[in-house]
Amino acid sequence: MLKKTTRYSLVDQVIIQIEALIESGQWPVGGKIPPEPELVAELNVSRNTLREGIKALCHAGVLFAKQGDGTYVCSNSTLGVAIQRRVHKSSLLDTLEVRYALEREAARLSAERRTEEDAERIMNCYRECNALAAEGDKLRYVAADMKLHLAIVEASGNPILMELYGHITEAIQESITLLSEKTFGRGLPMNKHIHLVEAIVRNDPDAADQAVQQHIDEMKKAIEAGEV
Amino acid sequence: MLKKTTRYSLVDQVIIQIEALIESGQWPVGGKIPPEPELVAELNVSRNTLREGIKALCHAGVLFAKQGDGTYVCSNSTLGVAIQRRVHKSSLLDTLEVRYALEREAARLSAERRTEEDAERIMNCYRECNALAAEGDKLRYVAADMKLHLAIVEASGNPILMELYGHITEAIQESITLLSEKTFGRGLPMNKHIHLVEAIVRNDPDAADQAVQQHIDEMKKAIEAGEV
Repeated sequence: MLKKTTRYSLVDQVIIQIEALIESGQWPVGGKIPPEPELVAELNVSRNTLREGIKALCHAGVLFAKQGDGTYVCSNSTLGVAIQRRVHKSSLLDTLEVRYALEREAARLSAERRTEEDAERIMNCYRECNALAAEGDKLRYVAADMKLHLAIVEASGNPILMELYGHITEAIQESITLLSEKTFGRGLPMNKHIHLVEAIVRNDPDAADQAVQQHIDEMKKAIEAGEV
Repeated sequence: MLKKTTRYSLVDQVIIQIEALIESGQWPVGGKIPPEPELVAELNVSRNTLREGIKALCHAGVLFAKQGDGTYVCSNSTLGVAIQRRVHKSSLLDTLEVRYALEREAARLSAERRTEEDAERIMNCYRECNALAAEGDKLRYVAADMKLHLAIVEASGNPILMELYGHITEAIQESITLLSEKTFGRGLPMNKHIHLVEAIVRNDPDAADQAVQQHIDEMKKAIEAGEV
């Protein structure tokens, strides 16, 4: 069977090129994009074509045009914006369940695939969590905890899993911070991740999975108890 | 702390309204959207504003303008299009791992939350799978198998989980069909899902999780053996 050929209009080509510049970090989030004449020359398109592409990316939530100033990059991914918008229409519990799904799979895969460097990075993050927990530094503990989770997802070696996890985490950042702070006092947070980290280091996917599940059950109980 | 107020431009409001019409099914995928003068009157915006909104949705992959004909709906979700585009840049194994993550969590949640109607629907799908497997009808078996999985994800009662699962499944539909066909002959496909279905019906999340995991391991072996 013949497959449909995708034909890109000039505007779509402009959009694809700009998205690539943003995703690669050449146009960083928060920065202003080059002035119109420069882009017209570089992309070799008409001003109208360029403007239509930029407008489309503004509506997609990737760029932001500041009247009388210039156009800024406000997100590094259309997928990220689409997820953000979808998450804002969802309940926190529903969103967390998706995040947990990705987290458990990431833990399994990390336990299978982690390199020596991954293991070292994860151990370092874990030690930092412990140190901050011992100091009782809630806010910095929460940030270190996030870093530990991201290091585990990274060790899975699956870029699309990492990206989805990152976007969803970002979209509920505030709620997660609140949730982590509320559960900080209970039990000993410094022992919380020991089973997970150990399982990944000794390449035991089932144990890693189980450790995440236990953590999820606790978080869910906190949510159901109305703590967030 | 004060939160930034989101101000929507007229064009963004047009986009949001059109997206809602599409997502609700009032403007079905494959259908032509109403003519411009009608929309201008109904949305109470200028022709230019309407056109810019429609153009942006065309670039987002939700609408498609057919020169000299009209504008058609080609997807019911910007999130779906964004996922589709991301998946096309990923390997099949990476994408499947994300799908498996959602599938396992869905199985757990279904086992916890399924209603009597859910259980009945899942059992019916399962019986259909068995009947088609017994007949050796590969193609229809694959379709029924997909329906069974979707019924399980639906019974999780988590809309964002369902949506992500649906979009990812759709994006790799062809590969899944191929994979299912290849693994059809091996073992007895009719017994494949018995543990999963039984676990959900008897409200046993751990057993449901384990049954999915077993299925995933088999599929991964098939992929690694180069069968897809």
